[in-house]
Amino acid sequence: MQAPATLARYRRDVDAFLRSFLDRGDPALLTRMTRYHMGWEDEGGRPAENAGKGLRPSLLLLACEAVGGDWRRAVPAAGAVELVHNFSLVHDDIQDRDRERRHRPTVWTLWGEAQAINGGDALLALARLALLRLHDEGVSSDVTLQAARLLDERTLEMVEGQVMDLEFEAMAHVEMEEYLTMIERKTGALFDCALHIGALVGGADRGTAQTLGGAGRLLGLAFQARDDMLGVWGAETRTGKEPAADIRRRKKSLPIVYALSGGDPIAVEAVNRCFAHEVATDTDVSAVLRALDAIGAHGYCADQAAKHKAAALALLDGLPLDEGKAAELRETAEFLLERDY
Amino acid sequence: MQAPATLARYRRDVDAFLRSFLDRGDPALLTRMTRYHMGWEDEGGRPAENAGKGLRPSLLLLACEAVGGDWRRAVPAAGAVELVHNFSLVHDDIQDRDRERRHRPTVWTLWGEAQAINGGDALLALARLALLRLHDEGVSSDVTLQAARLLDERTLEMVEGQVMDLEFEAMAHVEMEEYLTMIERKTGALFDCALHIGALVGGADRGTAQTLGGAGRLLGLAFQARDDMLGVWGAETRTGKEPAADIRRRKKSLPIVYALSGGDPIAVEAVNRCFAHEVATDTDVSAVLRALDAIGAHGYCADQAAKHKAAALALLDGLPLDEGKAAELRETAEFLLERDY
Repeated sequence: MQAPATLARYRRDVDAFLRSFLDRGDPALLTRMTRYHMGWEDEGGRPAENAGKGLRPSLLLLACEAVGGDWRRAVPAAGAVELVHNFSLVHDDIQDRDRERRHRPTVWTLWGEAQAINGGDALLALARLALLRLHDEGVSSDVTLQAARLLDERTLEMVEGQVMDLEFEAMAHVEMEEYLTMIERKTGALFDCALHIGALVGGADRGTAQTLGGAGRLLGLAFQARDDMLGVWGAETRTGKEPAADIRRRKKSLPIVYALSGGDPIAVEAVNRCFAHEVATDTDVSAVLRALDAIGAHGYCADQAAKHKAAALALLDGLPLDEGKAAELRETAEFLLERDY
Repeated sequence: MQAPATLARYRRDVDAFLRSFLDRGDPALLTRMTRYHMGWEDEGGRPAENAGKGLRPSLLLLACEAVGGDWRRAVPAAGAVELVHNFSLVHDDIQDRDRERRHRPTVWTLWGEAQAINGGDALLALARLALLRLHDEGVSSDVTLQAARLLDERTLEMVEGQVMDLEFEAMAHVEMEEYLTMIERKTGALFDCALHIGALVGGADRGTAQTLGGAGRLLGLAFQARDDMLGVWGAETRTGKEPAADIRRRKKSLPIVYALSGGDPIAVEAVNRCFAHEVATDTDVSAVLRALDAIGAHGYCADQAAKHKAAALALLDGLPLDEGKAAELRETAEFLLERDY
């Protein structure tokens, strides 16, 4: 499935904002790390085209338009959530020892862990500075402050989710409820933040903005369910990750938590055997994949994603939104579930 | 030399603010890491007393009072700069592979690098949230926004300094000017931030606040010169670091940059020999210490610290400050230079 046209519509402006914003030049190494990670340069500093999907900024700008706002004024906030997302990717890659992202070496693989920590830290500081540019676009001090507080609260929540995710790796068993709490923080919080801020900047009343944030949070859960599916069953050529990457990385992702909590002894045994080794063997990985098939894990995950998406869209129903933009929000939500990358 | 009474006067309120602010409880591991790092708990979660000197928050509150403001309204900002400082310590300890800080194991030593990265990230997000509490204390939206922008800009500058500091480790030669640029960013920026924000919240005009920030930046340089001296000649019982710790860590700190740029072939040879090995031998470290003695490195560093302090105090002279508070600022500046820990 192709990305909806919505994502392309905003991309140029968000991209232009971010490129000028990150081009500080000194120290050269920091500029290189951040521009490389954003996908604008290759490791030698030559121009490249390897950017992410830009989902969060697009959702922010769509929410702004859906409540009748001018999306151009919200571009700094869209840039800010994209930077927070990228800060977390740079640090996650270090924490998970992931050597590749989007078919390229990760920042820490190229420049070492110590400097990659700095690269992520800088992106987080830049995210805040980007957000504060809202004020320069004519957004009131009060709304800018509210947006800043939201960005910080959701960033903290995201870090809390990452703490839990890493803790799960060392736990023999993770309850489905714990998994959902973790994912709501790690992924849901920033989707929530995007729609909430977009609506605020667009002039929505507090209740509408909060409800849109809540819908964003559910879309985040749907997005992550799909992401977890791609981490097990995704095609390497599309995802840029090796087949069954999340099983090899011993991630307690949705299919695995389903297997461990479902009570099927063969599935539990297969997962435990595979996860017992630092480096999983192909045989062990295959056994897990067979067990997941046998218990219908793929269908379960797809149902979960669909359920979260439906709950998100139901929240939109009661809101006073522009019809065309609400339809685009729905279309983007569909894409979150159908995407194969 | 004892810390001036000023530092004690504010401590209780800043401490109370930070303790309530960091007590989020969930995930428990994150709360434990941050409370441990702040020195309020031991590694088992039992109450402890091992806090830092609180220099930056005290300078912020002194600046607020010096321009005639009510320091109590500025406490959230004082907490914020202390949190930014501590965020940087948690990440620096990972980057420098430092296993001890203030006579205790560092966060990454206890909970691993991956979770320690999260601990630092959380402190940075919390710093921002702390700052935004200014608004709850009756500080206007505009001043709160200005303070938020300053905190972010100075945080980014600090990260830039840390990038340079790590780069220096791999460089055979570092010019004195490069060293000063690095230290101005890594240390000066947050001292600048503290005095600038304190003055802003205290109601100072833009020019006065900026000048106080500039004085803070110079005090940061003085502080760091003294810190670099303690890293080479400090007493372990006072600093909590092993003797000549910065030489063993092969840090291009002020005495070393002075030795390398001074043109004395024996000193250059001693440093190069010592820094050529991953782990320095006691013999090599002793040779560096002898060489530093021979070229008068201790006196040079003390002169540098005194010069930066004098320049800082000269900036204060022209400002419309409360006389008693200005005297306390001077007293605190003296402490930065005389301290042995």
